[in-house]
Amino acid sequence: MLNIGVLGSGSGSNFQAIQDAIKAGKIAARINCVASDVADAYILERARKEGIAAAHIDCSPFKTKIEGEGARRMIDYLDEHEVDFVVLAGFMRMVKEPLLSAFPLRMVNIHPALLPAFPGLASWKQALEYGAKLAGCTVHFIDAGMDTGPIILQRAVPVEDDDTPESLHARIQVEEHIAYPEAIGLIAEGRVEVAGRRVLIDRGNLSRI
Amino acid sequence: MLNIGVLGSGSGSNFQAIQDAIKAGKIAARINCVASDVADAYILERARKEGIAAAHIDCSPFKTKIEGEGARRMIDYLDEHEVDFVVLAGFMRMVKEPLLSAFPLRMVNIHPALLPAFPGLASWKQALEYGAKLAGCTVHFIDAGMDTGPIILQRAVPVEDDDTPESLHARIQVEEHIAYPEAIGLIAEGRVEVAGRRVLIDRGNLSRI
Repeated sequence: MLNIGVLGSGSGSNFQAIQDAIKAGKIAARINCVASDVADAYILERARKEGIAAAHIDCSPFKTKIEGEGARRMIDYLDEHEVDFVVLAGFMRMVKEPLLSAFPLRMVNIHPALLPAFPGLASWKQALEYGAKLAGCTVHFIDAGMDTGPIILQRAVPVEDDDTPESLHARIQVEEHIAYPEAIGLIAEGRVEVAGRRVLIDRGNLSRI
Repeated sequence: MLNIGVLGSGSGSNFQAIQDAIKAGKIAARINCVASDVADAYILERARKEGIAAAHIDCSPFKTKIEGEGARRMIDYLDEHEVDFVVLAGFMRMVKEPLLSAFPLRMVNIHPALLPAFPGLASWKQALEYGAKLAGCTVHFIDAGMDTGPIILQRAVPVEDDDTPESLHARIQVEEHIAYPEAIGLIAEGRVEVAGRRVLIDRGNLSRI
Protein backbone atom coordinates (compact mmCIF):
# COMPACT_ATOMS: atom_id res chain seq x y z
CA MET A 1 0.00 0.00 0.00
CA LEU A 2 1.57 3.27 -1.17
CA ASN A 3 1.14 6.25 1.11
CA ILE A 4 1.04 9.09 -1.36
CA GLY A 5 1.65 12.80 -0.98
CA VAL A 6 0.53 14.90 -3.96
CA LEU A 7 2.22 18.22 -4.80
CA GLY A 8 0.42 20.62 -7.12
CA SER A 9 0.24 24.27 -8.07
CA GLY A 10 -2.99 24.42 -10.03
CA SER A 11 -6.40 22.88 -10.53
CA GLY A 12 -5.41 19.35 -9.58
CA SER A 13 -7.21 17.43 -12.31
CA ASN A 14 -4.56 14.71 -12.20
CA PHE A 15 -4.89 14.53 -8.41
CA GLN A 16 -8.61 14.00 -8.98
CA ALA A 17 -8.05 11.27 -11.58
CA ILE A 18 -5.73 9.41 -9.19
CA GLN A 19 -8.05 9.84 -6.23
CA ASP A 20 -11.00 8.62 -8.31
CA ALA A 21 -9.01 5.54 -9.36
CA ILE A 22 -8.12 4.84 -5.72
CA LYS A 23 -11.77 5.16 -4.67
CA ALA A 24 -12.75 2.80 -7.50
CA GLY A 25 -10.31 0.23 -6.08
CA LYS A 26 -7.98 0.41 -9.08
CA ILE A 27 -4.84 1.52 -7.19
CA ALA A 28 -3.55 -0.08 -3.98
CA ALA A 29 -2.71 3.27 -2.41
CA ARG A 30 -4.08 6.14 -0.41
CA ILE A 31 -3.39 9.84 -0.71
CA ASN A 32 -2.37 10.92 2.78
CA CYS A 33 -1.98 14.61 2.02
CA VAL A 34 -1.85 17.27 -0.67
CA ALA A 35 0.55 20.21 -0.61
CA SER A 36 0.70 23.29 -2.78
CA ASP A 37 3.18 26.10 -3.18
CA VAL A 38 0.21 28.29 -4.21
CA ALA A 39 -2.01 29.30 -1.30
CA ASP A 40 -5.26 29.41 -3.27
CA ALA A 41 -4.60 26.54 -5.70
CA TYR A 42 -7.80 24.67 -6.48
CA ILE A 43 -6.01 21.36 -5.83
CA LEU A 44 -6.19 22.18 -2.08
CA GLU A 45 -9.94 22.67 -2.28
CA ARG A 46 -10.31 19.41 -4.20
CA ALA A 47 -8.32 17.60 -1.50
CA ARG A 48 -10.43 19.01 1.32
CA LYS A 49 -13.61 17.98 -0.54
CA GLU A 50 -12.17 14.45 -0.58
CA GLY A 51 -11.43 14.62 3.17
CA ILE A 52 -7.68 14.64 2.54
CA ALA A 53 -5.27 16.81 4.55
CA ALA A 54 -4.22 19.81 2.47
CA ALA A 55 -1.77 22.60 3.13
CA HIS A 56 -0.02 25.51 1.52
CA ILE A 57 3.74 25.12 1.97
CA ASP A 58 5.80 28.30 1.72
CA CYS A 59 8.47 27.72 -0.94
CA SER A 60 9.92 31.23 -0.90
CA PRO A 61 12.22 32.90 -1.65
CA PHE A 62 12.41 30.91 -4.90
CA LYS A 63 9.76 31.14 -7.61
CA THR A 64 10.59 28.28 -9.98
CA LYS A 65 12.19 25.66 -7.72
CA ILE A 66 11.72 24.08 -4.31
CA GLU A 67 15.04 24.08 -2.49
CA GLY A 68 16.55 24.64 0.94
CA GLU A 69 14.16 25.82 3.67
CA GLY A 70 11.08 25.38 1.48
CA ALA A 71 12.13 21.84 0.61
CA ARG A 72 12.70 21.09 4.29
CA ARG A 73 9.22 22.41 5.13
CA MET A 74 7.79 20.15 2.44
CA ILE A 75 9.68 17.11 3.74
CA ASP A 76 8.44 17.82 7.29
CA TYR A 77 4.86 18.05 6.04
CA LEU A 78 5.16 14.82 4.04
CA ASP A 79 6.81 13.02 6.97
CA GLU A 80 4.09 14.23 9.32
CA HIS A 81 1.60 12.47 7.05
CA GLU A 82 3.77 9.33 6.72
CA VAL A 83 4.17 9.74 2.98
CA ASP A 84 6.44 7.22 1.27
CA PHE A 85 5.70 8.13 -2.35
CA VAL A 86 5.37 11.58 -3.92
CA VAL A 87 3.23 12.41 -6.94
CA LEU A 88 3.73 15.73 -8.71
CA ALA A 89 0.48 16.86 -10.29
CA GLY A 90 0.95 20.20 -11.98
CA PHE A 91 3.64 21.24 -9.52
CA MET A 92 5.34 24.17 -11.25
CA ARG A 93 8.74 24.06 -9.58
CA MET A 94 11.94 22.14 -10.22
CA VAL A 95 12.59 19.73 -7.34
CA LYS A 96 15.95 20.43 -5.71
CA GLU A 97 17.71 19.36 -2.53
CA PRO A 98 16.99 18.21 0.04
CA LEU A 99 13.58 17.13 -1.33
CA LEU A 100 15.08 15.46 -4.42
CA SER A 101 17.12 12.99 -2.37
CA ALA A 102 14.41 12.42 0.24
CA PHE A 103 12.38 10.21 -2.14
CA PRO A 104 14.84 8.43 -4.47
CA LEU A 105 12.84 6.70 -7.24
CA ARG A 106 9.82 7.42 -5.04
CA MET A 107 8.73 10.61 -6.81
CA VAL A 108 6.93 10.77 -10.15
CA ASN A 109 5.69 13.46 -12.52
CA ILE A 110 3.51 13.64 -15.60
CA HIS A 111 4.62 15.84 -18.47
CA PRO A 112 2.29 16.86 -21.32
CA ALA A 113 4.60 15.81 -24.17
CA LEU A 114 6.28 12.73 -25.60
CA LEU A 115 9.60 13.26 -23.85
CA PRO A 116 12.41 13.83 -24.67
CA ALA A 117 10.52 16.07 -27.14
CA PHE A 118 9.27 19.36 -25.71
CA PRO A 119 10.49 19.48 -22.11
CA GLY A 120 9.73 22.58 -20.06
CA LEU A 121 6.71 24.86 -20.01
CA ALA A 122 3.57 24.76 -22.20
CA SER A 123 4.84 21.78 -24.11
CA TRP A 124 1.52 21.40 -25.99
CA LYS A 125 2.13 24.88 -27.41
CA GLN A 126 5.71 23.95 -28.28
CA ALA A 127 4.44 20.83 -30.11
CA LEU A 128 1.86 22.84 -32.05
CA GLU A 129 4.35 25.52 -33.06
CA TYR A 130 6.92 22.92 -34.06
CA GLY A 131 4.34 21.27 -36.29
CA ALA A 132 4.45 17.86 -34.59
CA LYS A 133 1.72 15.47 -35.77
CA LEU A 134 1.76 13.42 -32.57
CA ALA A 135 1.71 14.83 -29.07
CA GLY A 136 1.04 13.08 -25.79
CA CYS A 137 2.07 12.66 -22.20
CA THR A 138 4.87 11.00 -20.27
CA VAL A 139 4.87 9.64 -16.71
CA HIS A 140 8.43 9.60 -15.37
CA PHE A 141 10.47 9.40 -12.21
CA ILE A 142 11.97 12.65 -11.01
CA ASP A 143 15.68 13.16 -11.30
CA ALA A 144 17.85 16.26 -11.10
CA GLY A 145 17.12 17.32 -14.69
CA MET A 146 14.23 19.15 -16.32
CA ASP A 147 11.80 16.37 -17.35
CA THR A 148 14.65 13.90 -17.85
CA GLY A 149 13.93 11.06 -15.38
CA PRO A 150 13.32 7.41 -16.34
CA ILE A 151 10.05 7.02 -18.27
CA ILE A 152 7.33 4.74 -16.89
CA LEU A 153 4.81 5.14 -19.68
CA GLN A 154 3.76 7.37 -22.56
CA ARG A 155 0.50 7.86 -24.42
CA ALA A 156 0.14 9.63 -27.79
CA VAL A 157 -2.60 11.78 -29.27
CA PRO A 158 -2.90 13.23 -32.78
CA VAL A 159 -2.32 16.92 -33.41
CA GLU A 160 -5.18 18.13 -35.63
CA ASP A 161 -4.75 20.80 -38.30
CA ASP A 162 -7.32 23.06 -36.62
CA ASP A 163 -5.94 22.64 -33.10
CA THR A 164 -5.41 25.60 -30.84
CA PRO A 165 -3.05 25.27 -27.87
CA GLU A 166 -6.15 24.85 -25.72
CA SER A 167 -7.77 22.10 -27.80
CA LEU A 168 -4.51 20.15 -27.99
CA HIS A 169 -3.89 20.56 -24.27
CA ALA A 170 -7.39 19.27 -23.53
CA ARG A 171 -6.81 16.18 -25.72
CA ILE A 172 -3.52 15.48 -23.93
CA GLN A 173 -5.14 15.87 -20.51
CA VAL A 174 -7.65 13.13 -21.32
CA GLU A 175 -4.68 10.79 -21.79
CA GLU A 176 -2.94 12.09 -18.67
CA HIS A 177 -5.95 11.11 -16.60
CA ILE A 178 -5.61 7.55 -17.95
CA ALA A 179 -1.81 7.30 -17.90
CA TYR A 180 -1.11 8.66 -14.42
CA PRO A 181 -3.44 6.31 -12.47
CA GLU A 182 -2.19 3.40 -14.60
CA ALA A 183 1.47 4.15 -13.86
CA ILE A 184 0.90 4.66 -10.14
CA GLY A 185 -1.17 1.48 -10.03
CA LEU A 186 1.73 -0.49 -11.55
CA ILE A 187 4.10 0.93 -8.95
CA ALA A 188 1.66 0.23 -6.12
CA GLU A 189 1.48 -3.39 -7.25
CA GLY A 190 5.28 -3.69 -7.15
CA ARG A 191 5.45 -4.39 -10.87
CA VAL A 192 7.88 -1.61 -11.80
CA GLU A 193 11.64 -1.94 -11.91
CA VAL A 194 14.25 0.64 -12.92
CA ALA A 195 17.39 -0.52 -14.75
CA GLY A 196 19.53 2.49 -15.59
CA ARG A 197 17.36 4.73 -17.73
CA ARG A 198 14.88 1.98 -18.59
CA VAL A 199 11.75 1.25 -16.62
CA LEU A 200 10.63 -2.36 -16.92
CA ILE A 201 7.29 -3.88 -15.97
CA ASP A 202 6.78 -7.35 -14.49
CA ARG A 203 10.38 -8.47 -14.75
CA GLY A 204 10.30 -10.42 -11.49
CA ASN A 205 12.81 -8.39 -9.50
CA LEU A 206 10.08 -6.61 -7.63
CA SER A 207 12.17 -5.25 -4.80
CA ARG A 208 13.71 -2.49 -6.87
CA ILE A 209 10.89 0.04 -6.47
CA MET B 1 1.31 13.29 -61.48
CA LEU B 2 4.52 13.51 -59.46
CA ASN B 3 7.70 12.52 -61.26
CA ILE B 4 9.76 11.12 -58.44
CA GLY B 5 13.47 10.56 -58.04
CA VAL B 6 14.44 8.35 -55.09
CA LEU B 7 17.82 8.72 -53.36
CA GLY B 8 19.02 5.91 -51.12
CA SER B 9 22.17 4.40 -49.66
CA GLY B 10 20.95 1.01 -48.47
CA SER B 11 18.45 -1.76 -49.03
CA GLY B 12 15.65 0.47 -50.30
CA SER B 13 12.73 -1.07 -48.43
CA ASN B 14 10.97 2.30 -48.39
CA PHE B 15 11.57 2.66 -52.13
CA GLN B 16 9.91 -0.72 -52.53
CA ALA B 17 6.93 0.25 -50.36
CA ILE B 18 6.38 3.40 -52.42
CA GLN B 19 6.80 1.58 -55.73
CA ASP B 20 4.38 -1.13 -54.60
CA ALA B 21 1.81 1.55 -53.66
CA ILE B 22 2.24 3.19 -57.07
CA LYS B 23 1.78 -0.14 -58.85
CA ALA B 24 -1.35 -0.75 -56.75
CA GLY B 25 -2.76 2.56 -57.97
CA LYS B 26 -2.60 4.19 -54.54
CA ILE B 27 -0.27 7.08 -55.45
CA ALA B 28 -0.67 9.33 -58.50
CA ALA B 29 3.04 9.30 -59.24
CA ARG B 30 5.79 7.44 -61.00
CA ILE B 31 9.37 6.84 -59.95
CA ASN B 32 11.46 8.03 -62.88
CA CYS B 33 14.83 7.09 -61.45
CA VAL B 34 16.75 5.92 -58.39
CA ALA B 35 20.16 7.22 -57.41
CA SER B 36 22.59 6.03 -54.78
CA ASP B 37 25.82 7.37 -53.37
CA VAL B 38 26.80 3.72 -52.68
CA ALA B 39 27.78 1.80 -55.80
CA ASP B 40 26.53 -1.59 -54.63
CA ALA B 41 23.48 -0.45 -52.63
CA TYR B 42 20.65 -2.96 -52.94
CA ILE B 43 18.21 -0.13 -53.71
CA LEU B 44 19.79 0.07 -57.19
CA GLU B 45 19.15 -3.63 -57.79
CA ARG B 46 15.57 -3.24 -56.56
CA ALA B 47 15.07 -0.37 -59.01
CA ARG B 48 16.43 -2.33 -61.96
CA LYS B 49 14.15 -5.27 -61.08
CA GLU B 50 11.26 -2.81 -61.30
CA GLY B 51 12.46 -1.54 -64.66
CA ILE B 52 13.40 1.85 -63.22
CA ALA B 53 16.54 3.74 -64.24
CA ALA B 54 19.16 3.41 -61.52
CA ALA B 55 22.60 4.93 -61.12
CA HIS B 56 25.45 5.36 -58.69
CA ILE B 57 26.24 9.06 -58.33
CA ASP B 58 29.71 9.93 -57.10
CA CYS B 59 29.32 12.16 -54.05
CA SER B 60 33.00 12.39 -53.15
CA PRO B 61 35.04 13.88 -51.63
CA PHE B 62 32.49 14.16 -48.82
CA LYS B 63 31.33 11.17 -46.78
CA THR B 64 28.36 12.46 -44.79
CA LYS B 65 26.90 15.16 -47.03
CA ILE B 66 26.07 15.80 -50.67
CA GLU B 67 27.40 19.19 -51.66
CA GLY B 68 29.12 21.00 -54.50
CA GLU B 69 30.17 18.84 -57.47
CA GLY B 70 28.41 15.74 -56.15
CA ALA B 71 25.19 17.71 -55.67
CA ARG B 72 25.50 19.10 -59.20
CA ARG B 73 25.97 15.57 -60.57
CA MET B 74 22.84 14.50 -58.70
CA ILE B 75 20.83 17.46 -60.03
CA ASP B 76 21.95 16.65 -63.57
CA TYR B 77 20.86 13.03 -63.16
CA LEU B 78 17.48 14.02 -61.73
CA ASP B 79 16.95 16.62 -64.46
CA GLU B 80 17.84 14.08 -67.13
CA HIS B 81 14.98 11.93 -65.82
CA GLU B 82 12.59 14.91 -65.52
CA VAL B 83 12.24 14.53 -61.77
CA ASP B 84 10.12 17.18 -60.04
CA PHE B 85 9.93 15.60 -56.59
CA VAL B 86 12.70 13.94 -54.57
CA VAL B 87 12.19 11.16 -52.03
CA LEU B 88 15.03 10.28 -49.67
CA ALA B 89 14.82 6.63 -48.70
CA GLY B 90 17.68 5.73 -46.41
CA PHE B 91 19.96 8.31 -47.99
CA MET B 92 22.76 8.66 -45.45
CA ARG B 93 24.00 12.16 -46.30
CA MET B 94 22.96 15.65 -45.27
CA VAL B 95 21.56 17.49 -48.29
CA LYS B 96 23.51 20.68 -48.97
CA GLU B 97 23.73 23.19 -51.80
CA PRO B 98 23.05 23.32 -54.61
CA LEU B 99 20.77 20.24 -54.26
CA LEU B 100 18.93 21.67 -51.24
CA SER B 101 17.65 24.70 -53.14
CA ALA B 102 16.97 22.78 -56.36
CA PHE B 103 13.79 21.21 -54.91
CA PRO B 104 12.28 23.69 -52.43
CA LEU B 105 9.47 21.92 -50.52
CA ARG B 106 9.80 19.22 -53.19
CA MET B 107 12.08 16.90 -51.21
CA VAL B 108 10.96 14.61 -48.39
CA ASN B 109 12.57 12.20 -45.98
CA ILE B 110 11.43 9.60 -43.47
CA HIS B 111 13.15 9.46 -40.10
CA PRO B 112 12.80 6.48 -37.72
CA ALA B 113 11.82 8.50 -34.65
CA LEU B 114 9.08 10.81 -33.40
CA LEU B 115 10.89 14.03 -34.23
CA PRO B 116 12.03 16.33 -32.70
CA ALA B 117 13.02 13.45 -30.40
CA PHE B 118 16.08 11.47 -31.51
CA PRO B 119 17.35 13.16 -34.66
CA GLY B 120 20.49 11.82 -36.27
CA LEU B 121 21.78 8.29 -36.65
CA ALA B 122 20.35 5.01 -35.28
CA SER B 123 17.47 6.82 -33.64
CA TRP B 124 15.76 3.54 -32.67
CA LYS B 125 18.86 2.76 -30.60
CA GLN B 126 18.78 6.24 -29.10
CA ALA B 127 15.11 5.75 -28.15
CA LEU B 128 15.79 2.39 -26.55
CA GLU B 129 18.78 3.67 -24.57
CA TYR B 130 16.82 6.74 -23.44
CA GLY B 131 14.06 4.49 -22.16
CA ALA B 132 11.29 5.96 -24.33
CA LYS B 133 8.04 3.99 -24.23
CA LEU B 134 6.86 5.20 -27.63
CA ALA B 135 8.98 5.31 -30.76
CA GLY B 136 7.90 5.77 -34.36
CA CYS B 137 8.62 7.47 -37.64
CA THR B 138 8.29 10.94 -39.13
CA VAL B 139 7.84 11.97 -42.77
CA HIS B 140 9.10 15.51 -43.24
CA PHE B 141 10.20 18.01 -45.84
CA ILE B 142 13.94 18.57 -46.11
CA ASP B 143 15.37 21.82 -44.89
CA ALA B 144 18.92 22.89 -44.07
CA GLY B 145 18.88 21.28 -40.61
CA MET B 146 19.40 17.72 -39.41
CA ASP B 147 15.90 16.16 -39.44
CA THR B 148 14.26 19.52 -38.71
CA GLY B 149 12.00 20.19 -41.71
CA PRO B 150 8.19 20.62 -41.56
CA ILE B 151 6.48 17.37 -40.52
CA ILE B 152 3.91 15.79 -42.84
CA LEU B 153 2.94 12.85 -40.67
CA GLN B 154 4.08 10.69 -37.79
CA ARG B 155 3.22 7.17 -36.67
CA ALA B 156 3.98 5.72 -33.22
CA VAL B 157 4.90 2.22 -32.06
CA PRO B 158 5.36 0.90 -28.53
CA VAL B 159 8.82 0.13 -27.18
CA GLU B 160 8.64 -3.27 -25.50
CA ASP B 161 10.64 -4.17 -22.39
CA ASP B 162 12.42 -7.00 -24.21
CA ASP B 163 13.21 -5.01 -27.35
CA THR B 164 16.64 -5.08 -28.91
CA PRO B 165 17.68 -2.28 -31.27
CA GLU B 166 16.90 -4.69 -34.12
CA SER B 167 13.40 -5.65 -32.94
CA LEU B 168 12.44 -2.02 -32.34
CA HIS B 169 13.86 -0.96 -35.70
CA ALA B 170 11.84 -3.69 -37.43
CA ARG B 171 8.64 -2.53 -35.70
CA ILE B 172 9.30 1.07 -36.78
CA GLN B 173 10.00 0.00 -40.37
CA VAL B 174 6.56 -1.60 -40.62
CA GLU B 175 5.08 1.84 -39.87
CA GLU B 176 7.50 3.56 -42.26
CA HIS B 177 6.22 1.42 -45.09
CA ILE B 178 2.68 2.65 -44.31
CA ALA B 179 3.52 6.28 -43.53
CA TYR B 180 5.76 7.07 -46.48
CA PRO B 181 3.38 5.99 -49.27
CA GLU B 182 0.53 7.72 -47.43
CA ALA B 183 2.41 11.02 -47.18
CA ILE B 184 3.58 10.94 -50.80
CA GLY B 185 0.05 10.05 -51.89
CA LEU B 186 -1.32 13.13 -50.11
CA ILE B 187 1.26 15.33 -51.81
CA ALA B 188 0.58 13.73 -55.21
CA GLU B 189 -3.11 14.53 -54.78
CA GLY B 190 -2.33 18.19 -54.07
CA ARG B 191 -3.77 17.96 -50.56
CA VAL B 192 -0.72 19.18 -48.65
CA GLU B 193 0.01 22.79 -47.73
CA VAL B 194 2.91 24.21 -45.74
CA ALA B 195 2.30 27.20 -43.47
CA GLY B 196 5.49 28.11 -41.67
CA ARG B 197 6.49 25.01 -39.72
CA ARG B 198 3.05 23.43 -39.93
CA VAL B 199 1.94 21.07 -42.67
CA LEU B 200 -1.81 21.14 -43.24
CA ILE B 201 -3.94 18.66 -45.16
CA ASP B 202 -6.99 19.53 -47.26
CA ARG B 203 -7.10 23.21 -46.36
CA GLY B 204 -8.20 24.30 -49.81
CA ASN B 205 -5.16 26.34 -50.81
CA LEU B 206 -3.85 23.55 -52.93
CA SER B 207 -1.35 25.53 -54.93
CA ARG B 208 1.20 25.72 -52.16
CA ILE B 209 2.87 22.36 -52.76
